Amino acid sequence: MLIVKKFGGSSVANKERIFNVARRCIEDYKAGHDVVVVLSAMGDTTDNLIEMAHSINPKAKKRELDMLLTTGEQVSVSLMAMAMQALDVPAVSLNAFQVMMHSTSKYGNARFKRVDTERIEHELDSRKIVIVTGFQGINKYDDVTTLGRGGSDTTAVALAAVLHADKCEIYTDVEGVFTADPRVVKNARKLEDITYDEMLELASLGAKVLHNRSVEMAKKYNVELVVRSSLTEAEGTVVKEATKMEKLLVTGVAGDVNTARISVIGVDDKPGTAFVIFNTLAKNNINVDIILQSVGREGTKDISFTVASDDLEQALEILEDNKERLTIQEITYNKNVAKLSVVGAGMMSNPGVAAKMFESLYNSRVNINMISTSEIRITVLIDEKDIDKAMNAVHDGFIMTE
Amino acid sequence: MLIVKKFGGSSVANKERIFNVARRCIEDYKAGHDVVVVLSAMGDTTDNLIEMAHSINPKAKKRELDMLLTTGEQVSVSLMAMAMQALDVPAVSLNAFQVMMHSTSKYGNARFKRVDTERIEHELDSRKIVIVTGFQGINKYDDVTTLGRGGSDTTAVALAAVLHADKCEIYTDVEGVFTADPRVVKNARKLEDITYDEMLELASLGAKVLHNRSVEMAKKYNVELVVRSSLTEAEGTVVKEATKMEKLLVTGVAGDVNTARISVIGVDDKPGTAFVIFNTLAKNNINVDIILQSVGREGTKDISFTVASDDLEQALEILEDNKERLTIQEITYNKNVAKLSVVGAGMMSNPGVAAKMFESLYNSRVNINMISTSEIRITVLIDEKDIDKAMNAVHDGFIMTE
Repeated sequence: MLIVKKFGGSSVANKERIFNVARRCIEDYKAGHDVVVVLSAMGDTTDNLIEMAHSINPKAKKRELDMLLTTGEQVSVSLMAMAMQALDVPAVSLNAFQVMMHSTSKYGNARFKRVDTERIEHELDSRKIVIVTGFQGINKYDDVTTLGRGGSDTTAVALAAVLHADKCEIYTDVEGVFTADPRVVKNARKLEDITYDEMLELASLGAKVLHNRSVEMAKKYNVELVVRSSLTEAEGTVVKEATKMEKLLVTGVAGDVNTARISVIGVDDKPGTAFVIFNTLAKNNINVDIILQSVGREGTKDISFTVASDDLEQALEILEDNKERLTIQEITYNKNVAKLSVVGAGMMSNPGVAAKMFESLYNSRVNINMISTSEIRITVLIDEKDIDKAMNAVHDGFIMTE
Repeated sequence: MLIVKKFGGSSVANKERIFNVARRCIEDYKAGHDVVVVLSAMGDTTDNLIEMAHSINPKAKKRELDMLLTTGEQVSVSLMAMAMQALDVPAVSLNAFQVMMHSTSKYGNARFKRVDTERIEHELDSRKIVIVTGFQGINKYDDVTTLGRGGSDTTAVALAAVLHADKCEIYTDVEGVFTADPRVVKNARKLEDITYDEMLELASLGAKVLHNRSVEMAKKYNVELVVRSSLTEAEGTVVKEATKMEKLLVTGVAGDVNTARISVIGVDDKPGTAFVIFNTLAKNNINVDIILQSVGREGTKDISFTVASDDLEQALEILEDNKERLTIQEITYNKNVAKLSVVGAGMMSNPGVAAKMFESLYNSRVNINMISTSEIRITVLIDEKDIDKAMNAVHDGFIMTE
């Protein structure tokens, strides 16, 4: 069996943890499996490097930033190889040049285009554990790129896909995917499995267990993922295509306080207004989430939407700069909002989920600001102060009563 | 003009120094020159990485050690590019993969085989300052290698050679090559120029200004080197082929306390004895320096030689292990010795230099243990405690009286 195992930065933050990871990999190796390990940079390395860069040039070019940051994973993988060798197991570390992880050109946020397998297969054939730098690629200029935060998950999935791995294990500091964040919802419980689509909705909704792009890629190449803890031997959660006939109505509940609402008031009520507004934001790389449009006074309309809190300031600036062109009479915003979402593949064939969610919220006296739905997700915008209460109420309403 | 400039780790040890180096390079760039910069790892980075590696695996494989260490220069070059960009000058950092610095396979002590120029030339053509990681190469397995300590000098010379640079400047923390270490010899003075051969003898004798291999390569490809300070604007010392008719009798005096004497007593006085002894040491990578053989008692001989202090313990172990085979009756050693050398291309045509050196030492009551000479060098082994006194005496005897 060929197993790809990915460990995040906190799992390799110091000598003891490096040896802990080494031992877990060696277990599989000694059971006769081929083992490919993907690592992130140790602990706070990436943050420290970014800080160093910003102290020298607050507007450091992303090309150079990527050149700097990719050293972090190279340190992890070489130390890991040394640890395994200290335990008398043959191991070799490889960076993106050595594997040849071809990526798009976009520094800081590249995507894999093609991944060569020759070198890894050669090392596996000589019975070595192969340790690969996560998070990085090489673009057509022979420059180093990074995949953006959490990109090591994507590296692991990409390698699992091209190597036709039997398993791709993503190790984190939690025991798997939960029905809700256990720190917030006391009745949250671990899921045995979850579909790619459900995981995608949860990841993009702030569940933070898996990098979104890695789930997309896993779905595309049908790579079965296992999310499990690097600290315990617990089984973890399997992410795969739905196989059961019976689907859970609601798989998980996610909250996200990193969100802000913006409303543009009194824009012209004519075709194309919304397009121009959101196109202006998109060009500036502002991702807009929930959108709600309502009729305003005298031939105008009001549009409300949410953005990530981090983007709020920039979004407001852009709207202000283009106020006239976009026919905006007034801009209002609210930072103290939160998104609450329920996700479940079973929703598709079960009407009434939304109603039940609203009932739970009503019973807890939580006011709903905005509503947005997809086939397998319902999201509401509520006051930030209500988020914990609301998550517990909705979680218990669905998951505990099933 | 195309200028290659190399800066060591202490020259880029912190933000201020990085900007200092950036400004010096930009001066040349703004004067219209093409500038290639070679950097070592910042400050103590390499030592810290080695320490980290040893804490995980005291016998870390050199392949993995090189993978680890080469991250140090990649950090320097990317930060330097950011600094230059902050000063509004286009710059790009390149590692050994991007330049393609082909090296031999020997991890930890590789040599360059071939260096591609395409990428660097392309970047220079678009008027960028090109910043290259020193000290590292890529071998035929696509693995990262290092050139050994001081290897960044060699990188600079190699790039100057293949790019046909007009100048190769090696920046250090001293103002150039001195007639002796100014910290020891108060009358030491800076040389305007020195030949490759003299520099080679001085470098290998512990003058520590330039990496030996870089001088060999400079000589081979006739690259004119300038050794100068990164802290002052002083002119520095030019290293080149001899051009003057009149050569200095003695160019420099060097002392080296990192040396130890070993004597093997009573070995068989028959052909091949010396060969077997030194071959055994060479196979274990022990470099032997001065060798002296004398007749011993009753058909035996005694052989004395020096090794680097760091190698003493291992050399003694090897000799002890092979005592019988090597027909050694007794092994003695002395750690408290030092080498004192005078170097000068003028010696070749001037007899009497040795005599004058011995006279200076005799006048200072310094006892000579062993003597070794080459065409342009005389080396004596003396007691370690006498080294400062002896260096001053010999230096003043030759250089002050010329």
